Amino acid sequence: MKYCFGVDIGGTTIKMGLFEEDGKIADKWEITTDTSEEGKSILPNTAASIEKKIEEHGLDKNDIAGIGVGVPAPVTSEGVVNGTANLGWSYKEVKRELEEMTGLKTVVGNDANVAALGEMWKGGGEGEKNMIMITLGTGVGGGVIIDGKMLVGENGAGGEIGHLCVNYEETDCCGCGNRGCVEQYASATGIVRLAKQKLGQDMRPTILNKEDVTAKDVFDAVKAGDEAAKDIAAVFGRYLGYGLANLAVIADPAVFVIGGGVSKAGEVLIPYIREPYMERAFFANKNVRFVLAKLGNDAGICGAAKLILDNE
Amino acid sequence: MKYCFGVDIGGTTIKMGLFEEDGKIADKWEITTDTSEEGKSILPNTAASIEKKIEEHGLDKNDIAGIGVGVPAPVTSEGVVNGTANLGWSYKEVKRELEEMTGLKTVVGNDANVAALGEMWKGGGEGEKNMIMITLGTGVGGGVIIDGKMLVGENGAGGEIGHLCVNYEETDCCGCGNRGCVEQYASATGIVRLAKQKLGQDMRPTILNKEDVTAKDVFDAVKAGDEAAKDIAAVFGRYLGYGLANLAVIADPAVFVIGGGVSKAGEVLIPYIREPYMERAFFANKNVRFVLAKLGNDAGICGAAKLILDNE
Repeated sequence: MKYCFGVDIGGTTIKMGLFEEDGKIADKWEITTDTSEEGKSILPNTAASIEKKIEEHGLDKNDIAGIGVGVPAPVTSEGVVNGTANLGWSYKEVKRELEEMTGLKTVVGNDANVAALGEMWKGGGEGEKNMIMITLGTGVGGGVIIDGKMLVGENGAGGEIGHLCVNYEETDCCGCGNRGCVEQYASATGIVRLAKQKLGQDMRPTILNKEDVTAKDVFDAVKAGDEAAKDIAAVFGRYLGYGLANLAVIADPAVFVIGGGVSKAGEVLIPYIREPYMERAFFANKNVRFVLAKLGNDAGICGAAKLILDNE
Repeated sequence: MKYCFGVDIGGTTIKMGLFEEDGKIADKWEITTDTSEEGKSILPNTAASIEKKIEEHGLDKNDIAGIGVGVPAPVTSEGVVNGTANLGWSYKEVKRELEEMTGLKTVVGNDANVAALGEMWKGGGEGEKNMIMITLGTGVGGGVIIDGKMLVGENGAGGEIGHLCVNYEETDCCGCGNRGCVEQYASATGIVRLAKQKLGQDMRPTILNKEDVTAKDVFDAVKAGDEAAKDIAAVFGRYLGYGLANLAVIADPAVFVIGGGVSKAGEVLIPYIREPYMERAFFANKNVRFVLAKLGNDAGICGAAKLILDNE
């Protein structure tokens, strides 16, 4: 029996899993991310935690395929990070450092790409080899899987779905400095922005609180039949659907997997996205499926495990 | 010494090359494409022509890696075509049929993707493994190369760059049925469309013939300093550049290779495309290079040869 570790490094916690090679999770735990002093303890803490688990489970290192790691930053195919927003790292040779500390082969990927790989392996995209995962969280992230492999790109910046331009008339700025990015309409933050715009103008009665509205409130109100909320969801869905249509004409996926905090609203989201998608999709891409992500917070560790198993 | 054949099947001619494994072209020839009776002679004629060359050069089939083929249609990863606009084929198992006729391993790809592979191997994208080729011809085609491999996609429809939507306000229809596709602005046909719109309204003197203008005329006039032509080129470049910015945010290429008939205008094109690209590109994609294609009509046979060599 072979084992491997899947590690999902986030700004708050580092999630880890010990996997059997068929994908079964033998153990799952997390440690706190110590971002002090430019995050210098992150990799040593990760390595120590893995060593401890190896001892705890009485494993032989020869039976361990290695460590897969997801990192919240662009990662080159050599496992190098050139800067992170949340970890404190600037230049960091993640692969080399972890390999030196543990003696185990390590493969590193961007966390959104890795989560997509996880959803392909054991989640919403199971059985497919061409899939795109869209993570609707504080921002909009994504992972493009082509023929079973993550699209990494030249700078490790492939699949930055949130920054597709879908509205050339937009005057507000995205966090990235451009205008009209998918993220401005489809992230939790973007939905709140749309809601405030809408509720500032709309005179109809609504159950939404105009002062303090969240993305969850909007979709709860949609489920309750609130017309103003439905209008907000339509704008969200229009721009996300338009973005996915442009994505499909490049990547030609079998399935879109929708994940992230916003996706907890559930199936109610899908028609809002699918309808504008169908309106704009290239004929060859009309039969794509839309599904919700299934793995939740485990997508990262699962995808990280898959990453190392694929590289054996 | 190993050999292979590269075959580029077009609606008018079938171009073929005999390659040495280092990429040297040992022979190059073409035959006429017989599209009569649903194109039923196309593959037999190709096979016969290859057999004749094997005899002519006194080759041993054991020294031949196989046949790479580019086809003007979406092609599945199993080498199956489900319909073509120009060859008369509906469902066609290209790989299986050619293998049975020749006894040689065959790999089949979409012609635009295959041409991109050729430009990566020996042309404008040489030395890169993440590149995108844009073919500006009657339509706009493209090939996306990720980590050295063609992006094929679920339906063989990956990299359909011409049908990225770049103008949600467009009222004219594209050939695909959508509105606002890159092809409506950046193909030879699209440039003529832009020119006619512009010349119908513009009262300034111009050297362009308002009744019978071609894409070549437009760029010749740009080179001659014609202001109306420069305005047309600016619209062409704006929409193409916007499309490439959206493409880059997904595929993260090192280089864009611009080919096809329109690219014969030369370096004058590049600033018209690069400037709007830079205006809209995601920060991680700003250092991409723009180059002209180098192989001309040989891109197809070169890429087809590379396709089979990569699959050995």
